[in-house]
Amino acid sequence: VTSPVVQLGRVWHFCASHRLHVDALSAEENTRIFGKCNHPHGHGHNYTVEVSLRGAIDAATGMVVNLADLDAFAARELIERFDHRNLNTLDCFADRVSTTENLARELWSIFMKFNELFPQVELVRVRVEETANNSFEYFGDNAAQ
Amino acid sequence: VTSPVVQLGRVWHFCASHRLHVDALSAEENTRIFGKCNHPHGHGHNYTVEVSLRGAIDAATGMVVNLADLDAFAARELIERFDHRNLNTLDCFADRVSTTENLARELWSIFMKFNELFPQVELVRVRVEETANNSFEYFGDNAAQ
Amino acid sequence: VTSPVVQLGRVWHFCASHRLHVDALSAEENTRIFGKCNHPHGHGHNYTVEVSLRGAIDAATGMVVNLADLDAFAARELIERFDHRNLNTLDCFADRVSTTENLARELWSIFMKFNELFPQVELVRVRVEETANNSFEYFGDNAAQ
Amino acid sequence: VTSPVVQLGRVWHFCASHRLHVDALSAEENTRIFGKCNHPHGHGHNYTVEVSLRGAIDAATGMVVNLADLDAFAARELIERFDHRNLNTLDCFADRVSTTENLARELWSIFMKFNELFPQVELVRVRVEETANNSFEYFGDNAAQ
Amino acid sequence: VTSPVVQLGRVWHFCASHRLHVDALSAEENTRIFGKCNHPHGHGHNYTVEVSLRGAIDAATGMVVNLADLDAFAARELIERFDHRNLNTLDCFADRVSTTENLARELWSIFMKFNELFPQVELVRVRVEETANNSFEYFGDNAAQ
Amino acid sequence: VTSPVVQLGRVWHFCASHRLHVDALSAEENTRIFGKCNHPHGHGHNYTVEVSLRGAIDAATGMVVNLADLDAFAARELIERFDHRNLNTLDCFADRVSTTENLARELWSIFMKFNELFPQVELVRVRVEETANNSFEYFGDNAAQ
Repeated sequence: VTSPVVQLGRVWHFCASHRLHVDALSAEENTRIFGKCNHPHGHGHNYTVEVSLRGAIDAATGMVVNLADLDAFAARELIERFDHRNLNTLDCFADRVSTTENLARELWSIFMKFNELFPQVELVRVRVEETANNSFEYFGDNAAQ
Repeated sequence: VTSPVVQLGRVWHFCASHRLHVDALSAEENTRIFGKCNHPHGHGHNYTVEVSLRGAIDAATGMVVNLADLDAFAARELIERFDHRNLNTLDCFADRVSTTENLARELWSIFMKFNELFPQVELVRVRVEETANNSFEYFGDNAAQ
Repeated sequence: VTSPVVQLGRVWHFCASHRLHVDALSAEENTRIFGKCNHPHGHGHNYTVEVSLRGAIDAATGMVVNLADLDAFAARELIERFDHRNLNTLDCFADRVSTTENLARELWSIFMKFNELFPQVELVRVRVEETANNSFEYFGDNAAQ
Repeated sequence: VTSPVVQLGRVWHFCASHRLHVDALSAEENTRIFGKCNHPHGHGHNYTVEVSLRGAIDAATGMVVNLADLDAFAARELIERFDHRNLNTLDCFADRVSTTENLARELWSIFMKFNELFPQVELVRVRVEETANNSFEYFGDNAAQ
Repeated sequence: VTSPVVQLGRVWHFCASHRLHVDALSAEENTRIFGKCNHPHGHGHNYTVEVSLRGAIDAATGMVVNLADLDAFAARELIERFDHRNLNTLDCFADRVSTTENLARELWSIFMKFNELFPQVELVRVRVEETANNSFEYFGDNAAQ
Repeated sequence: VTSPVVQLGRVWHFCASHRLHVDALSAEENTRIFGKCNHPHGHGHNYTVEVSLRGAIDAATGMVVNLADLDAFAARELIERFDHRNLNTLDCFADRVSTTENLARELWSIFMKFNELFPQVELVRVRVEETANNSFEYFGDNAAQ
């Protein structure tokens, strides 16, 4: 008998600034590609992150994973590192433009560590909402193109 | 010629209380596992349920299924049974912890009956939002783990 | 020269259960008055509380009051006491029905203590949202009827 | 080495009116099937459209596609044609009921043209929200039934 | 001893169409004033109505007014008359442009009848949201300009 | 006969970065007062601005003021100047901390110019939401403390 599988989604928020800019390109090129997102002193967002994890319901506790464990991980690895920061100054954006596409990919690699600590769940999606009008989802490095 | 297939999502709300508790465990164990969700007199939520159904667009009516039929079913089987109730007192939680994981699974079995009454649609997802920060989705008993 | 006055609103959430019931009334009367809110085992809500405070902008800091102080107070006096509780078991509802009207009044008296600790601001409103469709506001014991 | 694939979602809003009605059916049949949505002078909605596109992150720009290009396309092909219109008067609903099922399908065919202009992305979903309580998703003409 | 006074807000939604047009003006004038809101076949919205009532908390029930009474009134006088309608065809807009300003005023006069039926509360505000980006509030015919 | 007076609210969004910092204070003082909002490279928000204007309904048009005029003003004076900017680099924050209290006051002075151009309305409130959990309202320089 297999246990039923549930997918849970957990949401956190953080506030950060960034600037879309490629050093190797000219000022004109940067403006043409990134528009107002290239303004020299940066801008910012209230980012919303949703992480989706899939796993079997534990018959004893009725839970897929303890949200307290997930929140403790997110407090340390997500909020502590990204909240009230300038994304461009973080190591992970030293060689990459701080687009939300790249941010989603970075957050996937972070939450894969939670997956390793709690192998009863499988990380299936990281979704980052930059504003109410756009969002970016990453489904893992092996997701089919 | 096959008809185009659309997936519709319909949302309802209900207010209920619950307490996460396993009788077979000690008070200390219950507190360790469930934290504040184990407080003795319970607590509650405004639950949001979204049911997703997939089916071919009827060429005559332009609809996949009549939302009036779906709402009548939900009024009787969802709202009447769960709204303004204590989940722990319901039959379906007599032997299971009233987690939202287990609630999502229970709601799947309920809406499978709608699926049987209206076989032109296929139930593909039940999503339950406990708070704005967490949600649980069930994709069926045969969904791959 | 007087400083400009700003009104700030701060929002917190808590999850609680309650039952609307008056012991002195018959079961029929309770049902007639409170309807489904009188169901014997209670139900619950995700409550949203917004507190509005008015004060002069401090010329040095640009702030009316430090939100860190306000959040610390709310963590201790609001979240700790109301979150994941059954309102009916709290002292403040021992002699009063646990309606959101009475809850708004109780929260006013709690946040008046913040007002005493930080007299540079004036408490002007407590708003409690029980569901997305109803809310209750209290403007103080001296607000004109 | 393949580039990581991200799915982006972009949201736009438009306001339109419509009436659900089939000329070939009697007034009684129309009322029975469409209920209040068949009221003779129509009604309307604030429609929300979300388009999901999937593609590899461009190593140079960090973007899957330039949102400025997507917004320019949507301004011309979505907002200009649907906003502040009566759906029933549009060519695409001359022979079809103006249900949101059929609207989702029509919007898919529109955004497939964006897909042709920018082949580095693949259109994977069009979601139309008619009210906060219902939504309709189309995944393409070849999506499995 | 006076009872504490609470202000409650109750929200309902309805879907309607309208067209902003003044018969006495030329087509050019109508277009200049109303822009896309003057498109000949109309458009529509999901309208959100919030009614605010103020009254003393009843010492026995803990309520300002029974929401069941308010909802029954709104079902009959608001939803039944406005939902899934074309505002321009209603009597109240026979001689007035169907702007949301005029709609707010009309809804005030409707809910004043509730105020007459339940004089323990005072109608203090009607708020109508046409889209997420605009709203109109009416505070009564005697509100100071 | 006086015309009925309506209060309209119009909402816009912009994305900006800022850092709370007072040059005259030590690093320790800045950290003590502003906490994480003092992080050296700044952070950012999706700011939501709502402006409330009050005026008589024009008998001919049914409008208090033409929203097209208001939007044109906001595009030029609000979005163009604040969107995708670092608040600290703007003239209005050269001598003031870029708190949302001070931002609300600055936006009041901007929209007073709209009030001068369209004297049929009176500016009564500017509300700025920094995150979903906090907001700041300014009611004018003469509002009673």
